[in-house]
Amino acid sequence: MKNYILVFCVCLLYACNVETSNTKDITTHLKEDFTQYVNPFIGTSKMGHVFPGATAPFGMVQLSPQTNFEPMFNEDGSYNSDTYKYCAGYQYQDTTIIGFAHTNFSGTGHSDLGDFLVMPTIGKLVLDPIVTNDSRKGFYSTFTHENEEASPGYYKVNLDSYNIKAELTTSDRVGYHKYTFPKSNEAHIILDMVYNVYHHDNKNVWTFIRVENDSLVTGYRQTKGWARTRKVFFAMQFSKPFKSYGHKKYNEETYDGFYRRFNQEENFPEIAGKDVRAYFNFNTEEGESIEIKFALSSVNTEGALKNLWAEIPHWDFNKTKAETQVKWNEELSKINVTTLSLDDKRTFYSALYHTNLSPIIYEDVDGKYRGLDQNIHSSNGFTNYSIFSLWDTYRALHPLFNITQTERNNDMIKSMLAHHDESVHNMLPIWSHYANENWCMIGYHATSVIADAMAKSVGDFNHERALQASVNTANVRYFDGLGDYIDYGYVPDDKSHSSVSKTLEYAYNDWCIAQMAIQIGDDSLAEEFMKRSEYYNNVFDASTGYMRPRLSNGDFRENFDPMDTHGQGFIEGNAWNYGLYVPQNIDKMVDMMGGKESFTQHLDSLFTMEIDEKYIEKHEDITRDGIIGNYVHGNEPGHHIPYLYNWTGHPEKTQERVRMIMQMMYDPTVEGLCGNDDAGQMSAWYILSAIGFYSVTPGSSNYALGSPLVKEAIITLPNGKTTKIVARNQSTENIYVSSVTVNGEKVENNTLTHKELTSGGEIIFEMAPTAPMSNHLE
Amino acid sequence: MKNYILVFCVCLLYACNVETSNTKDITTHLKEDFTQYVNPFIGTSKMGHVFPGATAPFGMVQLSPQTNFEPMFNEDGSYNSDTYKYCAGYQYQDTTIIGFAHTNFSGTGHSDLGDFLVMPTIGKLVLDPIVTNDSRKGFYSTFTHENEEASPGYYKVNLDSYNIKAELTTSDRVGYHKYTFPKSNEAHIILDMVYNVYHHDNKNVWTFIRVENDSLVTGYRQTKGWARTRKVFFAMQFSKPFKSYGHKKYNEETYDGFYRRFNQEENFPEIAGKDVRAYFNFNTEEGESIEIKFALSSVNTEGALKNLWAEIPHWDFNKTKAETQVKWNEELSKINVTTLSLDDKRTFYSALYHTNLSPIIYEDVDGKYRGLDQNIHSSNGFTNYSIFSLWDTYRALHPLFNITQTERNNDMIKSMLAHHDESVHNMLPIWSHYANENWCMIGYHATSVIADAMAKSVGDFNHERALQASVNTANVRYFDGLGDYIDYGYVPDDKSHSSVSKTLEYAYNDWCIAQMAIQIGDDSLAEEFMKRSEYYNNVFDASTGYMRPRLSNGDFRENFDPMDTHGQGFIEGNAWNYGLYVPQNIDKMVDMMGGKESFTQHLDSLFTMEIDEKYIEKHEDITRDGIIGNYVHGNEPGHHIPYLYNWTGHPEKTQERVRMIMQMMYDPTVEGLCGNDDAGQMSAWYILSAIGFYSVTPGSSNYALGSPLVKEAIITLPNGKTTKIVARNQSTENIYVSSVTVNGEKVENNTLTHKELTSGGEIIFEMAPTAPMSNHLE
Repeated sequence: MKNYILVFCVCLLYACNVETSNTKDITTHLKEDFTQYVNPFIGTSKMGHVFPGATAPFGMVQLSPQTNFEPMFNEDGSYNSDTYKYCAGYQYQDTTIIGFAHTNFSGTGHSDLGDFLVMPTIGKLVLDPIVTNDSRKGFYSTFTHENEEASPGYYKVNLDSYNIKAELTTSDRVGYHKYTFPKSNEAHIILDMVYNVYHHDNKNVWTFIRVENDSLVTGYRQTKGWARTRKVFFAMQFSKPFKSYGHKKYNEETYDGFYRRFNQEENFPEIAGKDVRAYFNFNTEEGESIEIKFALSSVNTEGALKNLWAEIPHWDFNKTKAETQVKWNEELSKINVTTLSLDDKRTFYSALYHTNLSPIIYEDVDGKYRGLDQNIHSSNGFTNYSIFSLWDTYRALHPLFNITQTERNNDMIKSMLAHHDESVHNMLPIWSHYANENWCMIGYHATSVIADAMAKSVGDFNHERALQASVNTANVRYFDGLGDYIDYGYVPDDKSHSSVSKTLEYAYNDWCIAQMAIQIGDDSLAEEFMKRSEYYNNVFDASTGYMRPRLSNGDFRENFDPMDTHGQGFIEGNAWNYGLYVPQNIDKMVDMMGGKESFTQHLDSLFTMEIDEKYIEKHEDITRDGIIGNYVHGNEPGHHIPYLYNWTGHPEKTQERVRMIMQMMYDPTVEGLCGNDDAGQMSAWYILSAIGFYSVTPGSSNYALGSPLVKEAIITLPNGKTTKIVARNQSTENIYVSSVTVNGEKVENNTLTHKELTSGGEIIFEMAPTAPMSNHLE
Repeated sequence: MKNYILVFCVCLLYACNVETSNTKDITTHLKEDFTQYVNPFIGTSKMGHVFPGATAPFGMVQLSPQTNFEPMFNEDGSYNSDTYKYCAGYQYQDTTIIGFAHTNFSGTGHSDLGDFLVMPTIGKLVLDPIVTNDSRKGFYSTFTHENEEASPGYYKVNLDSYNIKAELTTSDRVGYHKYTFPKSNEAHIILDMVYNVYHHDNKNVWTFIRVENDSLVTGYRQTKGWARTRKVFFAMQFSKPFKSYGHKKYNEETYDGFYRRFNQEENFPEIAGKDVRAYFNFNTEEGESIEIKFALSSVNTEGALKNLWAEIPHWDFNKTKAETQVKWNEELSKINVTTLSLDDKRTFYSALYHTNLSPIIYEDVDGKYRGLDQNIHSSNGFTNYSIFSLWDTYRALHPLFNITQTERNNDMIKSMLAHHDESVHNMLPIWSHYANENWCMIGYHATSVIADAMAKSVGDFNHERALQASVNTANVRYFDGLGDYIDYGYVPDDKSHSSVSKTLEYAYNDWCIAQMAIQIGDDSLAEEFMKRSEYYNNVFDASTGYMRPRLSNGDFRENFDPMDTHGQGFIEGNAWNYGLYVPQNIDKMVDMMGGKESFTQHLDSLFTMEIDEKYIEKHEDITRDGIIGNYVHGNEPGHHIPYLYNWTGHPEKTQERVRMIMQMMYDPTVEGLCGNDDAGQMSAWYILSAIGFYSVTPGSSNYALGSPLVKEAIITLPNGKTTKIVARNQSTENIYVSSVTVNGEKVENNTLTHKELTSGGEIIFEMAPTAPMSNHLE
């Protein structure tokens, strides 16, 4: 019954959207300020895990307000499940801010960041964020959304507890704070080295602060969260000398040198400890601004200082803000869309914004960066990037980059190859950040990113080296069931959990490697990996028609529940949805699962079935709104599924579902993301779908056509050409595509090639209120 | 009564020594193997705090067995005072070894090292050092001294629990282990990253291990002991591939990544955690040796690998051992002595050996090193050194270096200047090690080391820069009462403890700075610091005749006990002995304290008085044998005192005391040091005294003459000249000096100048059984 209501509500919402959005028609192709359409607050409520703070595109510094007050553990020691939603440090419903941190993942399924919390206060110095030992209020401030503002590269809020206006902007590697104070003889800037996103889960290993002079502070923080050994260095320059400073330690784990022989807590310039909060004191006049430039480095404080001086050599906040806005317009203008409604345009550009937040630039201005071996390397001929959430982003984010960000994607692949070279495993990244491999999720999808770029002739990275790195990765036997996969032809469920998911993904990754080998002309490797790419067969149980966990003795596992997302050989999915994962050979999968009509019915059921509440509760990372029947858009394994109808002779059903998902799962509100944005993957799905196609099989140069949401999209390509996508007769009702032409040539099989997309010219979708009869033939 | 017995016993021992040592007469001036006279076990019992392991002169790697089993805290939580004697990880009376660690302070008053404990074992793998959770024996081994051997650069022991022969040698930056196994299918090498000297006082912040391939391991350890933030990197090369490996974590503070998703405890090459023990498994044949080259770096693992490959590119243990022995002979042969007994010769060369163990070389083969700012620097034009225990070593060790190690001392001063430049305080080192200032003890005695080198024209360091660094250091007001010292003319006892000690030492240091200024010709600075150098006056209480704690209101403190070493304004001393510390103006001090006869009587009392047991118990760092009356040789503040009789017209008493101390406080046994060797200072006192003089006032170019112990000493000087010191008619009875000539010129005032010492030629002491009458005149 509950599910019935859910589905009903969802449909109602869909209908509402259709009605309201139909009333506006925005047609602006002129050079314009695209940042006006971006609302960084989209997705900051519930499970979007995005942040509203300031950052440059792919910036190393992502400076954002932190509102997380929830303790990670309840008083009885149990896990507080409310913590999870604070993955990017901010929840829209909160009314208090405890400061501004310089690093934040965007949309990930976990957090490891939140470095260097800065907070301005006035009055008696308080160094506890929430509450003091004697029950006084901590240094947090209340705020309201009326006095809060965010746009690409800029964030502003009034800290009501202190009547301090806080403004933030950034360059690539430097956060720029501007705090406008009331008159006070007790103005403070707090530098909280204790804070983490999930701040009761203390990840600190050690922190170090040097007060270099009366307005410059340097130091580092070392953490052990997802990362084995993560170190971030900083340089913090104040616009005005502080009159005094000091610190307190919040942990007994301190060095036992000669700390107590003379006062090292006040005005003593060398500070270290596990958990330290430092403060800097000022007198301020009414309306006086104190500005802070806060640079990061992965290398050392010398690197942070270089970044500081190179990127923001002045004290002109608005100059940095304007420069970063220019950068954002450069990125956002690459796809210039005309939409049916302003809401759609806001959703679109906010999604495009979210696809430009990671991977991040991860090197100093001189090209030095910390490698996976913890030694310092110099990028030579590329810009080094970090934060690769590849299980998510190989699907649509990197394919999107292959259209609009080819230079960056080329650099990202070179960064992955450097990662491989620095890796003691000789592996490409799985989920890597800040010179660490965190092993999150499954597969080795860097191979997909590489194969996709090779298939689309993107970049100048060395193909042989990339193939070798991929082959090395695919043969690390101790990695996550991989040795067994090689030996058995599948991952035995009694040896490794998520066995079916792993088998399916390894097989797809192996197909990607085979594609590289084919392109390079290495027949032997191509054969080896094409063979491995068919191992999905080995977990298909013809008796049930499902991909199913299989044991090392060859039997399929008993007690199999294809609806359950837990303990059934899958991760973040079940046999019903995740089982449809053979992107490398969809025709074969459709055949295997009973042929086109049967498969169509499976898909229909997937989107319409009523599922038991117990299964919904088990879904991870998403809100209820992220589910349509048994289709889970909030997690990634199903992102290709709406497009699978193209292979069953029912593209009109793809068109319906895609439009439905775009309208249901995305909107320009704070709840506008139905699950983690997953480092941009959720948004990239939207961008591609909104302009009419999707990368169902990264590693091939084909896109599956869907139903564009926009009326028109002008894509300025890195090759200097322009491709104009036009949806004729576009409307909220005309969701069906009666024909598609590329420069006048009709597209026959619902497939667009990368060459067609990027050769310039015009792609015209003829939109219609009903599906053409031809689609129903077959 | 007890004291009476103590003094009586001491005199008896003295008498015994005189009798026994008189029987031998060694006269070998020929080129010889001086390492044969060095016994690294001297001082390894009780409070010498030295280690018997292998090291090159001033080597960065000091690889030594660790026998410390004592828990730092008793079961009731109280401090276990037995811990302290394990400062260098080894106590001679122990019968068990838990492994071999690569860094050890030599003779210091505390420990911060013990990095990277390596232990070979056979049989069922055990990773706990002492006892397992199920009460089985830990991985330690029993051993006996019969099967133990140590010489400069070499250590050998039989690990009886496993019948493994362990041999160690080192180059400057690489430890070389050779383990000869019995036949076993369960041979292990354990790499214990948890161990610290004082190993129950866990200093680990984080550790990291990478198994690069089947025979190479790299990583780092970060600690927070004395040091705020200390990091040591390593590269460990095995001579034979291990068949498997793994690790266990001994602390819940681990990173919470995806550790449990697949087996990362066995044969997984990336390991991190707070407390980790790794193991490497082998099969061995009977008598098979597994060798390990273990390189350190302060920079990164790349630096450790460079050191490894540059210094020991082969697998020839004996070659490295021989090369290091050659280095030792080069150092030891610089003073070629002829002694009355073989024991004296052993004591002498073991002391000389101990003066060559620190400061250590602290840079990689490419000149890169970690600076105090934690950034990586390159030494340019010098070799960078670390471990500056300056409160100890400025007295005699650096003055000794100005005779025999001018190049190193010049480099050490350049290292101190680099330290100053890298210091956020703009201070020269106080007590610094491994890119950290630990602030141990008082004063800023780097100024003494610099002034002494300038006075003796040693080195080519920039004098102006050195003066400026000294002046900067002397004006850091927040440092240890220094601001008050500047303001009040003394350190007020109500504001800072050890107030008198600090006042006296600052005044002496300021005199050193004045000497630099005079030499450079900066009259203004010379005047300023000469004025400060007289501040000792301000803590002299004429009413009691003692240096006495003074309050900020100008009054001397009540409840003053000149015998107490605690809470009386002194540190490691009392008003009776430490109060005699005005090396920069001894004549004035003697006058102030009542004139020569009165001062003579004070000195006489000092050496002969019976002191209450309660005061003895309070002495730090020393054994009872380190005390003669109220003279404490085991601590440094009195080291100049025996020579003060030279200023009272009683040089014969200096001669008596000096010979008495050399015979009482030093012998070639495991108990041959009466207190911490203090990074070589105790041994340097012996070396200088044994060849007939002492540096009472470093910063002047004068030495005070004593009574040589040797019959002859040929000093090969860095300037290419040779000075021969001859004690004519030397014997254990002929302890008095009737005359001294330098190249035939009679020395008149018991003073030898550095120029006289280093111009080459012959210095002849005429020894006599009684003091010449002239000494008794005045």
